[in-house]
Amino acid sequence: MSTPPLAPRVQAVSDSVFATLLAKHPLPDGPIHPLHVGDTWLAPPEGCGPDDAVLSDDPDASRYAPVPGLPSLRAAVAERLVRRTGVPTVPEEVVVTPGATGGLSAVVGALVPHGGEVLVPVPAWPLFAGGVRVQGAVPVSVPWLAVDGPEAAVEALSARATDRTVAVYVNTPGNPTGAVWSEETLDAVVALAASRGWWVISDEVYDGLVFDGRTTSVRARDPSRVVSAYSCSKGFGMAGYRVGWVVAPAPVARAVARMQTYGTYCASRPAQTAALRALGPAGDAWLVQARAAYEALGAEAADLLGVPRPEGSTFLFVDVADALGGEPLDVLLIDLLRQGVLVSPGTSFGPYPTHIRVCFTSAAPDVVREGVRRIAARIGRA
Amino acid sequence: MSTPPLAPRVQAVSDSVFATLLAKHPLPDGPIHPLHVGDTWLAPPEGCGPDDAVLSDDPDASRYAPVPGLPSLRAAVAERLVRRTGVPTVPEEVVVTPGATGGLSAVVGALVPHGGEVLVPVPAWPLFAGGVRVQGAVPVSVPWLAVDGPEAAVEALSARATDRTVAVYVNTPGNPTGAVWSEETLDAVVALAASRGWWVISDEVYDGLVFDGRTTSVRARDPSRVVSAYSCSKGFGMAGYRVGWVVAPAPVARAVARMQTYGTYCASRPAQTAALRALGPAGDAWLVQARAAYEALGAEAADLLGVPRPEGSTFLFVDVADALGGEPLDVLLIDLLRQGVLVSPGTSFGPYPTHIRVCFTSAAPDVVREGVRRIAARIGRA
Repeated sequence: MSTPPLAPRVQAVSDSVFATLLAKHPLPDGPIHPLHVGDTWLAPPEGCGPDDAVLSDDPDASRYAPVPGLPSLRAAVAERLVRRTGVPTVPEEVVVTPGATGGLSAVVGALVPHGGEVLVPVPAWPLFAGGVRVQGAVPVSVPWLAVDGPEAAVEALSARATDRTVAVYVNTPGNPTGAVWSEETLDAVVALAASRGWWVISDEVYDGLVFDGRTTSVRARDPSRVVSAYSCSKGFGMAGYRVGWVVAPAPVARAVARMQTYGTYCASRPAQTAALRALGPAGDAWLVQARAAYEALGAEAADLLGVPRPEGSTFLFVDVADALGGEPLDVLLIDLLRQGVLVSPGTSFGPYPTHIRVCFTSAAPDVVREGVRRIAARIGRA
Repeated sequence: MSTPPLAPRVQAVSDSVFATLLAKHPLPDGPIHPLHVGDTWLAPPEGCGPDDAVLSDDPDASRYAPVPGLPSLRAAVAERLVRRTGVPTVPEEVVVTPGATGGLSAVVGALVPHGGEVLVPVPAWPLFAGGVRVQGAVPVSVPWLAVDGPEAAVEALSARATDRTVAVYVNTPGNPTGAVWSEETLDAVVALAASRGWWVISDEVYDGLVFDGRTTSVRARDPSRVVSAYSCSKGFGMAGYRVGWVVAPAPVARAVARMQTYGTYCASRPAQTAALRALGPAGDAWLVQARAAYEALGAEAADLLGVPRPEGSTFLFVDVADALGGEPLDVLLIDLLRQGVLVSPGTSFGPYPTHIRVCFTSAAPDVVREGVRRIAARIGRA
């Protein structure tokens, strides 16, 4: 007999729009401007790089780490959070994860039942909604581009809430817009979650990348209800290592670790050692330098593309409707691709068929600049 | 309002029996004999160790890897499989995963629907059944200790099959028994799967650790139906790095990669570089040396404990019923713990309340030997 079909949960998510496009339209010879991935051209903090033999800090690097992470790293994360947010935090509330992707996946697994709903303000990072879907749960899109202020936020979320809603997803500064939620909006959203009995799943991977230097802690508003995910991918330029952490009330942290036991067991141990180094002075110095460089590049790219300068993160989300002439976005994507410029389609982030997302940090500044210039020329803003 | 309950899927799995015990009964001062974990005292292959700065092979080590793995590693895995098993294999059939734990988790996610059943011959590695449970699916235990030969195997599996069965789990050489399935039994089990339309999920993490040097390929019997998971944790002593791979028909491999996208995105990139090195001559040399050392230690431990010598893997599964005097196994576990000896209870692997699992490679040989001696004394076989 033939094999059974693939499980519905994996059929509920699709391959990346971009990968599908690339399969049909090969890249040109010549320089490539890969502005479609969220990555950085910067090397990791001092002592955490490819040539630093970071493994040698840990003689047991080749052996299993405890599921929730190396005790030294969990303690360092807790200390950092206390320092940055003032919220009392103990190592038992910290679970080291394979990046925030791995962390959020385990959080959704621990908190969202099959068929449960999570409110997702869109446009949003597509892997969160996909991670909800593969658990057999339902990401409910909440249009957020026009939301302005706490009342509108509460209204937008309330309009999509049902009795199956168990959580709301918050991502500030956000991917793909770079927008930073105001303190008042965060207050209102966490208060709404409290009044309705929802979890707040806070994706804080761009923590430290708000250009005016503000630190906003979602968790400070209700540590019993907010589960936060952090990443060394964005915060320290260590995406390839796959290390980050989740901070949650201790029983939730235990449940997240339990999910992780069956997922990846533990984050890669050498990566955990590198993360521990990054949490020292080298990481702080990196962040100061990265923030300044990103802010300048973001402003430059925004000016070239004729959009407002980003408040944080590494992205611009640009409406290119007036350059499409009624044609589908794919035509523009393929045009750019032929020029070696890769950007993400708005449809990856929600119902945005006329937007593109541009990462202004994913390659060296000159490569980004030239890519952005080509986009600006193609959309008639040069 | 208070927060919602944890999701049923995470409530369906429990914390490790051992962790619960350790929380109540702290370890003594003095030497510890950690024979409860499946790990190795051996350093990784030459060039893959903590001091080897393996990261420097890959200037982009800090950047994202493709979800299914570095192309060079996928190609090396495919070549190795062709060499070891004779089965034609292309890189598109290989997905690099964060260990076999991560691989099997993504495989179950891709193949087993919510409510679907997987036949699991027991005793079995507990993380597989847990990984099925957290997907909302059902691991169906099939008593296997007394199964002897192909007819008995088919009978045992058939007795537990239902119309919800979608896969059968095969693990040879196996954890916790160290038993190697015969060629005839494998033929019969794969043929049964074919006749019933099941997947075969083959956990081959102890590949290369069969002491008589045999290579058994489950996949060779039906590459369209068998999905295999491999690990550098056991095969090359690199458990902490979290890297392994899944080999599957290309459409399944794509589905596994899609699941992984939302799980951990990709295996840690420096770990992938280390794995690539391990697939060279250094890894082959390591395996020859490890196999000889493990075989000698396994035989010595088996003789001390009065059980048959293991055929492969790194474990002995020992019935200690005659040493319990009617008392629960916990009494013996706590006695051993007070002597610094840690072993896993049989109940972690199935309905085996009078068994213990002993790993004879998880610490340096002298440490293992002394631990085994203490167990032998406690169970009256010294």
